[in-house]
Amino acid sequence: MPSWYDLAVDKRQRQSKTIPSQWRIQLPPESTIDVIPYPETCGLLTPEEIEITNASVEILLVKLAAGEWSSFIVTTAFYKRAVISHQLVVNCLTEIFVERALARATELDEYMKKTGKVAGPLHGLPISLKDQLCIKGLETTMGYVSWIGKYADSNAVLVDILYECGAVPFVRTNVPQTLMWAETFNNIFGRTSNPHNRSLTSGGSSGGEGALVALKGSPLGVGSDIGGSIRIPAAFCGVYGLRPSYGRIPYGGAVNSMEGQDSMPSVLGPLSGSIGGLKIFMEAVIKAEPWLRDPLTIRKHWNDEEYKLADHRRGKDLCFAVMWDDGVVIPHPPVKRALEMTQKALIKAGHKVIDWTPLKHRELTGVAFDIWRSGSVEDFAITTSASGEPLIHTMLLDDEKETFLPSLRTQGGLTAYQLWQVQRYRRDLRTEYMAHWNATSSQTGTGRPVDAIICPAAPYAAPRHGRNRLVKVVDSHHSMYFGYTSAWSVLDYAASIFPVTSVDPYRDTKQPPHQFIDGFDQEIYELYEPQAFQNAPVCLQLVGRTLEEEAVLAMTGIVDFALRG
Amino acid sequence: MPSWYDLAVDKRQRQSKTIPSQWRIQLPPESTIDVIPYPETCGLLTPEEIEITNASVEILLVKLAAGEWSSFIVTTAFYKRAVISHQLVVNCLTEIFVERALARATELDEYMKKTGKVAGPLHGLPISLKDQLCIKGLETTMGYVSWIGKYADSNAVLVDILYECGAVPFVRTNVPQTLMWAETFNNIFGRTSNPHNRSLTSGGSSGGEGALVALKGSPLGVGSDIGGSIRIPAAFCGVYGLRPSYGRIPYGGAVNSMEGQDSMPSVLGPLSGSIGGLKIFMEAVIKAEPWLRDPLTIRKHWNDEEYKLADHRRGKDLCFAVMWDDGVVIPHPPVKRALEMTQKALIKAGHKVIDWTPLKHRELTGVAFDIWRSGSVEDFAITTSASGEPLIHTMLLDDEKETFLPSLRTQGGLTAYQLWQVQRYRRDLRTEYMAHWNATSSQTGTGRPVDAIICPAAPYAAPRHGRNRLVKVVDSHHSMYFGYTSAWSVLDYAASIFPVTSVDPYRDTKQPPHQFIDGFDQEIYELYEPQAFQNAPVCLQLVGRTLEEEAVLAMTGIVDFALRG
Repeated sequence: MPSWYDLAVDKRQRQSKTIPSQWRIQLPPESTIDVIPYPETCGLLTPEEIEITNASVEILLVKLAAGEWSSFIVTTAFYKRAVISHQLVVNCLTEIFVERALARATELDEYMKKTGKVAGPLHGLPISLKDQLCIKGLETTMGYVSWIGKYADSNAVLVDILYECGAVPFVRTNVPQTLMWAETFNNIFGRTSNPHNRSLTSGGSSGGEGALVALKGSPLGVGSDIGGSIRIPAAFCGVYGLRPSYGRIPYGGAVNSMEGQDSMPSVLGPLSGSIGGLKIFMEAVIKAEPWLRDPLTIRKHWNDEEYKLADHRRGKDLCFAVMWDDGVVIPHPPVKRALEMTQKALIKAGHKVIDWTPLKHRELTGVAFDIWRSGSVEDFAITTSASGEPLIHTMLLDDEKETFLPSLRTQGGLTAYQLWQVQRYRRDLRTEYMAHWNATSSQTGTGRPVDAIICPAAPYAAPRHGRNRLVKVVDSHHSMYFGYTSAWSVLDYAASIFPVTSVDPYRDTKQPPHQFIDGFDQEIYELYEPQAFQNAPVCLQLVGRTLEEEAVLAMTGIVDFALRG
Repeated sequence: MPSWYDLAVDKRQRQSKTIPSQWRIQLPPESTIDVIPYPETCGLLTPEEIEITNASVEILLVKLAAGEWSSFIVTTAFYKRAVISHQLVVNCLTEIFVERALARATELDEYMKKTGKVAGPLHGLPISLKDQLCIKGLETTMGYVSWIGKYADSNAVLVDILYECGAVPFVRTNVPQTLMWAETFNNIFGRTSNPHNRSLTSGGSSGGEGALVALKGSPLGVGSDIGGSIRIPAAFCGVYGLRPSYGRIPYGGAVNSMEGQDSMPSVLGPLSGSIGGLKIFMEAVIKAEPWLRDPLTIRKHWNDEEYKLADHRRGKDLCFAVMWDDGVVIPHPPVKRALEMTQKALIKAGHKVIDWTPLKHRELTGVAFDIWRSGSVEDFAITTSASGEPLIHTMLLDDEKETFLPSLRTQGGLTAYQLWQVQRYRRDLRTEYMAHWNATSSQTGTGRPVDAIICPAAPYAAPRHGRNRLVKVVDSHHSMYFGYTSAWSVLDYAASIFPVTSVDPYRDTKQPPHQFIDGFDQEIYELYEPQAFQNAPVCLQLVGRTLEEEAVLAMTGIVDFALRG
């Protein structure tokens, strides 16, 4: 049997061969930090392809439905830009299947020629998929050397639905080994960097999607999020993203790590260059009645009334609450500035804004960690041992290895009874947080509780590789710090990401030390060096209630309009 | 500290004192098997009280809303009948609080007098509650000696909602120790028998509700169901019951055993003397938007379209499937006869009926057992050890003790990782069962899959105490056999119970042995002696899909009408 290393080399070589040679580009100098402009300047894309790939999902669907742009032309344009992106940010793609995607596009074009109708609400639209979403006949490694050679017998339920909606799944995108990292690196495909600044992480675990969508190599991508895995890469790469509640989008037939971990399930959701792209995806998938195909999907129809904010007085007098920090770690200056910009824009647009008091976010993050570690060590060990590939213990670059810190990879194992106690505590926290939210009705002046919370997606913009740091969440446990996203996952609140600004070293100067909450807060403070973060996007998060996807999308649209209006 | 025994005696004495002495009745001779007629013949109820307590929930609400019957009169009538029932079937009640309930009824009467309006959709209606549903200021023992003296600081969320709907919570009802039995017996209140035949079990764990509603001591009761705990007592006692899907009815603030066991949660649901009673309860509670008060309740509005069977061509050409047996154990003759009666009635009413092929019901029951046992031994031991009360190991009468069989009480303990594997297998079974159901669209002739499954609620009518037997579900595990209900709980299908007939020893004669599936099937066959089951009600179960409560209620109404029409 070949070694894990040889298997990985072979897979990379096979992947390399799937890139059409005419789409190989001359790479920018390694010193080029920001590669965002490069796809349009490298010379490979025609002016029409540049126009197509710069269009939003809304525009693309209109032009496709009008027959103005064929799916073949649109798919070719995005495929070229995706392959350019892949070369620029290093391995944002995993599976590349140009012929298959173009054949599908042609089929749709012929369908339209024949019938004069669209094949579905996503007619002709190329969609990128995180490397969990099985497509029949394609390999699904999910970044595990152990899974090389695992070809799918059938499509994931979501893939079937996307096909039926007329979409063109066209690439799959990179992930970290185990998926349980907020950066993106694995033993097969390596690392996905941030296209705005390649010395920074793209985030994770849907890091391939974040980087690809940011470079407009895909108009719409599907990621997954267990504690921030859609939101963190969306935020670090400067695109829109949605974490739906458990069971809103069908997960059936997708591969995953820690399978059977049902306490705090991972969810699928969209990333896109526009808020409209997120809404179009959600509406199309939910209208396909996925609960008839996947038993874990909730029977809840797309609700236009909720999208029109029926539960929020039709959006007439919204009251947002800004959470300036989560009580665990104080965000960096650019994040604070983004919060201030959003606050100002909302007030200018006639909405109310009050402050949000965080409640037990450290405990919420601790619950996430306890649930995951209850079986993670065994899960990861079993999967990696099949090939002998090493378990990855740090996301730092090779020349700055550090000692292993306690993590989901090294510290874990609970009995089912112990897990029940964690879940019981978690239920109590959810109950407390709901009462806390309900109680804001006395402060909003609208007669309702706060309509949505606006908060950071992370305490920082995208940090350098390996610096999406570890935090001591409770006495004896360490975790990567994705508390700004994972807290809402524990509560199962629907949450979106929207871009606000980017780091400007001249405006976002280092501030004098504040009174540190603890050593971790200090460590994060010290991480901020304006130059190191230059050009990193700064996005924020909008948080609604459980299964309130429609309202969260509508309110994100309102905030987005206020910011750009 | 007093012994557990003394604590239980004291609690029983305190309970006894809450029964008004003028409501004490002369008991029928111990040899009286069927006590159903007794409340109306014992002389305590006035003719008006008999009329009131014989009325359905629908009628009661109309008369209450019209001011024809005051809530005080209605509550008094049901309270008297409940207390009579309690004396007849032995301990169907736990908490008795006459003054408090009558004060509440008076309050509602005054509200109506003052405003001319009802206080809510359940105005004035007395509702009984299983001994898990905390009411502020009352003790909640849930049948545990260890919990004697545990007074609630606040109402359960559902109790708050019932109050707001204008209801009168008026008694709490008996349960088995741990709740994890399909019969009803505990160290405080003892045993709840079946009012149709006191030598038989009332079922469990909502056995107090089943017996009380059957005797018309309550028009509407709330039970809970983790694997059959509403459906089995409803079926054994001959009343209607509904097991909603996970999270449809708020569980917050109710006590429970095995708290934190989130894999296969217990659900609350109604029992009533009419199908209309179930619908009225569900609609009222869901319209109160319980997801704004309990974080585990699903944000899914009451859906009138689904109640009008929008997903089942408006009920015009329904196709039911009869599951004659589950492939694990063949039902007794009276159950078979009930299935035949229902089949005939549905065909006569113009509906299609085909046969249902059961899929892996033994495995589904095994999954339920594995989930429960993953932490049950520890949970039960910790709770009982607080008082030193013995853990109950059999539901047999004292003079027929048997050796302990392996059970949730003696055999258990999984790691979280092992539990994940059970959950993974369970997800696969759910996926397989969904595909199996969808595939029936080729057999129904309606273009749709089967609309609902009709099947037994148990392989027998109510058996003698302690005879709701154990079964070897997989090689090394034993469980009480509630496979006919627990399989649907593992799948999270909404399921109702409706009465069909009762055991008639002359018609339901013992049949010659069939080819036994295994030793357990033979054991169940041998359990059937027509005389022993005489007068036991025979109910069936109607099974719909997950979160399809509205359609299940509507279709149960159609079946009910076909049977009685």
